Amino acid sequence: MELPTPPYYAVIFSSLLSEQTEGYKEASQRMIALAGIQPGFLGVDSAREQDFGITVSYWRDLQSIEAWNTQAEHLEAQRMGKQRWYREFRIHISRVERAYEFTAEHR
Amino acid sequence: MELPTPPYYAVIFSSLLSEQTEGYKEASQRMIALAGIQPGFLGVDSAREQDFGITVSYWRDLQSIEAWNTQAEHLEAQRMGKQRWYREFRIHISRVERAYEFTAEHR
Repeated sequence: MELPTPPYYAVIFSSLLSEQTEGYKEASQRMIALAGIQPGFLGVDSAREQDFGITVSYWRDLQSIEAWNTQAEHLEAQRMGKQRWYREFRIHISRVERAYEFTAEHR
Repeated sequence: MELPTPPYYAVIFSSLLSEQTEGYKEASQRMIALAGIQPGFLGVDSAREQDFGITVSYWRDLQSIEAWNTQAEHLEAQRMGKQRWYREFRIHISRVERAYEFTAEHR
């Protein structure tokens, strides 16, 4: 994504998968696609290394995050996540105060 | 890590590796160990999926982040990162306003 001008918000979701991962991958991809069409969505980054993953989604404001958290299909995925897919997870809601990027010129 | 009481700070570092990764892994592990003994350090999470990675470090305040960013060995690693290891990276400095966690009981 192009870096927006702060302030905006980052939701840092770090998770440890359980051994019951049936349906997880599809739901995860679906949630990323669905988040992408919500009002106030700015972008998302995700990386998983074996059972530990970090997904950071960026949002215009807290209202957008709240609306996404209570979206019906997302609520159902959250329920499945707690019931089956995750051994544990942590969510940090944070206000981006500074953002910068580096791009190598000759690689 | 145990979740501290907000507010505190999260530094979200997302990066795309170049093909020149000699020395990267050792430096990356060294930086995580070195960050861990800095004043104000609260914890770190990291996941890399092929060439894309996300590392989130948590800090007590902006002063701790600034001190870490200008630590001598870290400055040298930053220089190498720009010169060789990274094709691009983004840094978001954000203030954690809410944090919560979930732990499954029977898995």
